[in-house]
Amino acid sequence: MPLLPAITSPTLLVHEAVCKANIARMSDKGRKHRLNLIPHFKTHQSRAIGNWYKEYGIEEITVSSLHMAEYFVGQSWKNIHIAFPFNPLEIDLLEQLTLQSSISIQLVNAQVTQLLADRLQNPVEFFIEIDAGYGRAGIEVSDFGAIEAIMRIANRSDKLNFKGFYIHAGHTYHADPAGIHRIHEQTKSALKMLKDKYFDEFPSLKTRIGDTPSCSLESDFDGVDEIGPGNFVFYDLTQVHIGSCNKSDIGIALAAPVVDIKKTKHEILIHGGGVHLAKDVLTYPDGSQNFGELVVFNGQGWDIPETPSFLKSISQEHGLVNATDELLSKVKVGDIIGILPVHSCMTADCMRGFLGLSGEKLDHFKGQQKLQ
Amino acid sequence: MPLLPAITSPTLLVHEAVCKANIARMSDKGRKHRLNLIPHFKTHQSRAIGNWYKEYGIEEITVSSLHMAEYFVGQSWKNIHIAFPFNPLEIDLLEQLTLQSSISIQLVNAQVTQLLADRLQNPVEFFIEIDAGYGRAGIEVSDFGAIEAIMRIANRSDKLNFKGFYIHAGHTYHADPAGIHRIHEQTKSALKMLKDKYFDEFPSLKTRIGDTPSCSLESDFDGVDEIGPGNFVFYDLTQVHIGSCNKSDIGIALAAPVVDIKKTKHEILIHGGGVHLAKDVLTYPDGSQNFGELVVFNGQGWDIPETPSFLKSISQEHGLVNATDELLSKVKVGDIIGILPVHSCMTADCMRGFLGLSGEKLDHFKGQQKLQ
Repeated sequence: MPLLPAITSPTLLVHEAVCKANIARMSDKGRKHRLNLIPHFKTHQSRAIGNWYKEYGIEEITVSSLHMAEYFVGQSWKNIHIAFPFNPLEIDLLEQLTLQSSISIQLVNAQVTQLLADRLQNPVEFFIEIDAGYGRAGIEVSDFGAIEAIMRIANRSDKLNFKGFYIHAGHTYHADPAGIHRIHEQTKSALKMLKDKYFDEFPSLKTRIGDTPSCSLESDFDGVDEIGPGNFVFYDLTQVHIGSCNKSDIGIALAAPVVDIKKTKHEILIHGGGVHLAKDVLTYPDGSQNFGELVVFNGQGWDIPETPSFLKSISQEHGLVNATDELLSKVKVGDIIGILPVHSCMTADCMRGFLGLSGEKLDHFKGQQKLQ
Repeated sequence: MPLLPAITSPTLLVHEAVCKANIARMSDKGRKHRLNLIPHFKTHQSRAIGNWYKEYGIEEITVSSLHMAEYFVGQSWKNIHIAFPFNPLEIDLLEQLTLQSSISIQLVNAQVTQLLADRLQNPVEFFIEIDAGYGRAGIEVSDFGAIEAIMRIANRSDKLNFKGFYIHAGHTYHADPAGIHRIHEQTKSALKMLKDKYFDEFPSLKTRIGDTPSCSLESDFDGVDEIGPGNFVFYDLTQVHIGSCNKSDIGIALAAPVVDIKKTKHEILIHGGGVHLAKDVLTYPDGSQNFGELVVFNGQGWDIPETPSFLKSISQEHGLVNATDELLSKVKVGDIIGILPVHSCMTADCMRGFLGLSGEKLDHFKGQQKLQ
């Protein structure tokens, strides 16, 4: 890889071929199951990487904040969904965005719905977010009072257009394939019930799910019209751990300088820590922790050693590798080694910029602009 | 506080008076114990906040990477220590920096020392980093062979000037006051032994420690010449938890919009998650987790409720608060509430910009520049 000699500091590499294969697979799955794929861009937050999806027919995208939507508006993304309970303090920004793109939001209570009905100048579509047991956000699936309160307010408004129901089953990220399947069945059954109940009144209503594990592993989407996963473009060790993908499907690796090696302790010290990878961790039954798995760069990308070496601890800038003899035999101080992240969305957000394998720079959203 | 109505999205507020009181206290302590204070700027990474230290006579600073040093060089910081095992791939950047400032680095092996001796054009001072039991980085205190190998190479070079020994006792961050005291005694005894052993050969050698818990709590620094703590300017819940400070000493709070409230579940949903606070967490004996503690903004800063409410879970953008009745009675959807961070260095690094309580913007290093 000709770019490696140019890397002297922690740098996030993105493997375009792996990412495009991931996009192609999810896109094919959507077509096969007649699911509209509206990929979540919070994982890469990149205009350049976003453009890769266009080759697969993607026209509508998901983001996690209005400021992130602002970043993609005008980059020929004309349909943007903000998969976060609407923050009523950002109504002015919402209005600005609706002038440039078709924007949809998520609503979870009557209060914010009423505020939007009172103040919106431009039409906005919305999903009602349903909490089907995850407990993070959304209306409980059986709370028809709360659901219909939102619908009533919207029906009286010519600015709020009900689009359907959205469920993000975030608890699949902590499950195994059997658990993911069980959760997915609950999600489908909740959405099916809601669709049956409200279909007569809203014949065009759509149901949407958002979690990468279900979208990767499941093969029956009865009752689901749309999927909005994000993580699948990069995947990560968490997704490998729960069975959503193979290690070879992981599309990013942190390139990190080796600054010290202690062979007798089987330790490699790298410049690469919490500010580069984030602090997400896999904790195993024996209590050991994994903050990232080591890979070795080659001419075309990276090799994944059969017996894993992993980051056993990280602090702000340091990473300490528990290294196999095999890895120790290949690495010396001053080398660059690779780290597959535990949670790719968070790693990308820490690094805020990528390098492709041919050395090209790829952008990342830098966070809300006013303090930048 | 007149700035609150202007805040509509997650924003990191910095309380200048609290931070300056923290700087004054550590500065006074240094003077009292005849310790040279070389504060670590990795916590705030801000030129504006860095200038606050000048009022307290600070002229030399610590950073955690060469790129961070580059950010402060030229801002009238003429003495910068990089408290990280030197990354030999960054030797060209080191050379550039030495043209503008007096730079000191840390060395942990003969290999990198030899490379510097062979290639350096400009003089650099260095500390030998000692691992006194923490196990992250540095030479074991009894490994005189490794220590003297570095000294020998440096003695033969006219570019490498040995300055002294540095110990960062990072394990104090996971201890209680008794444990911190025990570790501090070990650190002092290690440094005293090294100083006694090498004083005849290097009569001007200095010993330095870097951890905020010891610098905050301990009152005997026999054998220690210099201290380089960083976290103390902001402190955080981790430091409160281990006894280094009071909650009222915490100098930053994330201002986060309230997007939903579920009174019967005692839950408040905020826009404020891992990309804002980082994923550092305090885990209690009963297994419950604390990702941040709630405060209520007032005219002059924030009030800390006597009975704490805390973030019980966070994801990329969501934060879910376990709220007391008292907090629930004060907060409504559309309000801005405050979160004291678990680890202020990581929160500041996520947000990369601060707002002062009078609405003034304060900068934060944006990470290595080449991908920005």
